[in-house]
Amino acid sequence: MLKRIAVLASGRGSNLQAIIDAIESGTMQNVAVALVVSDRKNAYALERARQKNILTAYFNSRLFISREEYDRELVAYLEEQQIDLVVLAGFMRLLTPYFVLAFQGRILNIHPSLLPAFPGMNGVADALAWGVKVTGCTVHFVDEGLDTGPIILQEALPVARDDTVETLHQRIHALEHRLYPLAISLWAEGRLKIEGRRCLIDEE
Amino acid sequence: MLKRIAVLASGRGSNLQAIIDAIESGTMQNVAVALVVSDRKNAYALERARQKNILTAYFNSRLFISREEYDRELVAYLEEQQIDLVVLAGFMRLLTPYFVLAFQGRILNIHPSLLPAFPGMNGVADALAWGVKVTGCTVHFVDEGLDTGPIILQEALPVARDDTVETLHQRIHALEHRLYPLAISLWAEGRLKIEGRRCLIDEE
Repeated sequence: MLKRIAVLASGRGSNLQAIIDAIESGTMQNVAVALVVSDRKNAYALERARQKNILTAYFNSRLFISREEYDRELVAYLEEQQIDLVVLAGFMRLLTPYFVLAFQGRILNIHPSLLPAFPGMNGVADALAWGVKVTGCTVHFVDEGLDTGPIILQEALPVARDDTVETLHQRIHALEHRLYPLAISLWAEGRLKIEGRRCLIDEE
Repeated sequence: MLKRIAVLASGRGSNLQAIIDAIESGTMQNVAVALVVSDRKNAYALERARQKNILTAYFNSRLFISREEYDRELVAYLEEQQIDLVVLAGFMRLLTPYFVLAFQGRILNIHPSLLPAFPGMNGVADALAWGVKVTGCTVHFVDEGLDTGPIILQEALPVARDDTVETLHQRIHALEHRLYPLAISLWAEGRLKIEGRRCLIDEE
């Protein structure tokens, strides 16, 4: 059964593109991007979606009286579109508990560090400033916390002596574009099992 | 010039052994273990040292009225023995600011996680319980904090689905035994430069 995913993005949507590419190349066969949602009208992610004739929606936070009201409307829309899985791809809003509960175990996020190290907005810059020699990226389920949900996949990357935030982020992005489609496929195949804080991957 | 190092250990001293082995095999040519200190009379690390005719000292905390007094005596002894570098290898005492200041930039520690994730006594168990897919080990300079000093070397390791604390720690130990002699050599060769929180390694 084809799983219908919604990608939520605020920015240029390079992870959205990686997901689209993985579907078009046949790497990811059990998933369709049914919808792309943004909180920014001019997010390039929306443009990418339109180019592929994917349904798009712009949710303007100024039209809602609270974060919860925003999320109630968004959840209603996602349900109306029969979305199976919500994929956060640079979506710059923290989801409310209402949203998390509505899509419990069905929301993924990707983060440019080896969580639990360097959560939050500036994972790459924070890691570089701390002086780590190894960082990486993490795909995880979303819970009510900030980047705290069960970890699905992680991969490490060495930090080079002359790395800047830009060069490091570029290499992490390349990892992300490989890891996110893989994690989504694992979810779609029903191979992820959550036990407490741990996410176990069924062998095929 | 041969650098004189003191290894401080509370337990079995497997990292001490790795250092001794690296010296005996010629991998580490600029360092001599001048002294092994323990806060536990029966630490096997002391026995390993005696077998190699290395000077040993047992510092019994019950003989000192405070942590600082303990550290003052220990620092005095290390200075008397003309120690260049203090190497913590499973030493189960947090050093006081007095000690850290006395050997500023000349104290190394090794930790079984990718710091700043999972500091403290149970780095391996904590990482496993959190559900990370990647962990590793870290060699760092010691400052006044708990496992917070500038990082010299890190290396990552995947966590396997069926890992226990024991199996994971075993693989991390193998990493440690390779990384610690390497970091000590880099220090002894004068190739480590601290800039803020970052430790830069000079290329040869």
